[in-house]
Amino acid sequence: MSVLVVGSIALDHIKTPVSEHRDLLGGSASYASVAASFFGPVRLVGVIGEDFPPPHRQLFADRGIDLAGLEVAAGKTFCWSGEYEQNMNNRRTLSVELNVFEKFQPKLPESWRATPYVLLGNIAPSLQRNVCEQVRQPKFIVADTMDLWIEMARADLLKLLGEVDMLILNDSEARQLTGEDSLIRAGRKIVGLGPRYVAVKKGEHGCLLFGRDGEFFSTGAFPLEQIKDPTGAGDCFAGGVIGHLARTDNLSFTNLKEAVIQGTLVASFCVEEFSLRRLEKLSGDEIAARRKAFGSYIA
Amino acid sequence: MSVLVVGSIALDHIKTPVSEHRDLLGGSASYASVAASFFGPVRLVGVIGEDFPPPHRQLFADRGIDLAGLEVAAGKTFCWSGEYEQNMNNRRTLSVELNVFEKFQPKLPESWRATPYVLLGNIAPSLQRNVCEQVRQPKFIVADTMDLWIEMARADLLKLLGEVDMLILNDSEARQLTGEDSLIRAGRKIVGLGPRYVAVKKGEHGCLLFGRDGEFFSTGAFPLEQIKDPTGAGDCFAGGVIGHLARTDNLSFTNLKEAVIQGTLVASFCVEEFSLRRLEKLSGDEIAARRKAFGSYIA
Repeated sequence: MSVLVVGSIALDHIKTPVSEHRDLLGGSASYASVAASFFGPVRLVGVIGEDFPPPHRQLFADRGIDLAGLEVAAGKTFCWSGEYEQNMNNRRTLSVELNVFEKFQPKLPESWRATPYVLLGNIAPSLQRNVCEQVRQPKFIVADTMDLWIEMARADLLKLLGEVDMLILNDSEARQLTGEDSLIRAGRKIVGLGPRYVAVKKGEHGCLLFGRDGEFFSTGAFPLEQIKDPTGAGDCFAGGVIGHLARTDNLSFTNLKEAVIQGTLVASFCVEEFSLRRLEKLSGDEIAARRKAFGSYIA
Repeated sequence: MSVLVVGSIALDHIKTPVSEHRDLLGGSASYASVAASFFGPVRLVGVIGEDFPPPHRQLFADRGIDLAGLEVAAGKTFCWSGEYEQNMNNRRTLSVELNVFEKFQPKLPESWRATPYVLLGNIAPSLQRNVCEQVRQPKFIVADTMDLWIEMARADLLKLLGEVDMLILNDSEARQLTGEDSLIRAGRKIVGLGPRYVAVKKGEHGCLLFGRDGEFFSTGAFPLEQIKDPTGAGDCFAGGVIGHLARTDNLSFTNLKEAVIQGTLVASFCVEEFSLRRLEKLSGDEIAARRKAFGSYIA
């Protein structure tokens, strides 16, 4: 089954304690669509400027991603600049230039409105809701979000929660959204706010998955000795989750657990290199090999 | 098979944001021996003062713990006073009165020297080594430790690592011991320092288990909405680990994983009440029921 991915497409400037890189392919939709492409056909909705480097566009094409929903607008591509501290857990945004993204309104090609699996990558909840209005009878909608929207657009986000099947956010965001210190209480509270499921990402500590009927799943991260660049790991996780669900077309909780594991694995590759450089070279066999090892690591 | 537990026995004064309790049964050996007693016979080595409340002693007896190695010394029992912050993750020691513990030298009854499974609860590494010298051909020795010893007695601790089969410590202690930010690198480094295995406890995030031959296991914590008092959770974890190993007398990595799960479950009961109040009422059936639920939570 096909996956529709909507989100940001960006040029990232990233500083880590050991290096600095400019004009990297970034943005929630870039990471998520490439991650999902390892599982089946992907349709990308987003906007880029006239300056978008052709090699970046080629990367999407090489992954077989359908770009009929990729709008090229007059002006420059959205640009994010950030810096990581030594332990890679703390990120500081240095600058954000919205550029063409400022007026972005997702427009789904008519034939894409019936896409069964939808990932609303991390963008403003109002834009995510706009996409919900355009799709027809989707089987499963996953929405990713972040602290910025919980702080700036809480009302929109709460409305969105009534329209999606799964929310993805990280541990501190789950605490921020609910006011609960305990992640267990936070997760259970979020599934009371609308979504059937919530996945709480915990970085190196893995992920918790909660269902509205008391379902629960906890998994660790894939063990990595070194992380080069954590940017996009959460987007790749979301892309892997929706990709696996679309490939299997099975919405049982057992299969949702497997989707969380697949998302975890794709994210584990993502952080091994800057931008999408690792995923660019990644093969399905490598994911399968890591899945096999992971099986013995968690049970 | 029998388990020998050595460690501290204390009277704890504990303050949390919601309540305060005095003269609670505490200490690493108290928690660990009671936890291990759910799996089979336990022999306790420790020291108490003349003021030790008879009900506390009765609790050990009720759990069938052999107290032939429990020394009663002239003076007062070791006393620890601490305070927890709102989120229960940060603990502050308010006072420590060593009392009879100051001159404690573990003395194993002659017939206990051949105990096959040994838990060196969290006390000074020199005392833990002293016990290693007294036991004869043990099958498996587990040692627990803490930040204090890494800071104050690093040389002793490093010597101890060459004499034990498994070290247990928490995430920040693993980082402190190795100087590694990454827990994966830290864990792999520790198994290079002597112990065949290391278990890195991560509180609400569960536990990582590393083996010297590259074995790895990651498990989450049992999901609890509320934690009343985290004191002793790590000791109960260690008690559950050694208890399961002794009960099964199987040192395969597959069984070590199960030991880590059993330790996780006993610890999950411990934190539901102050001191050993929850374990006092706990049944093997309750552990088995939680094990069954946990199975669906992690795989």
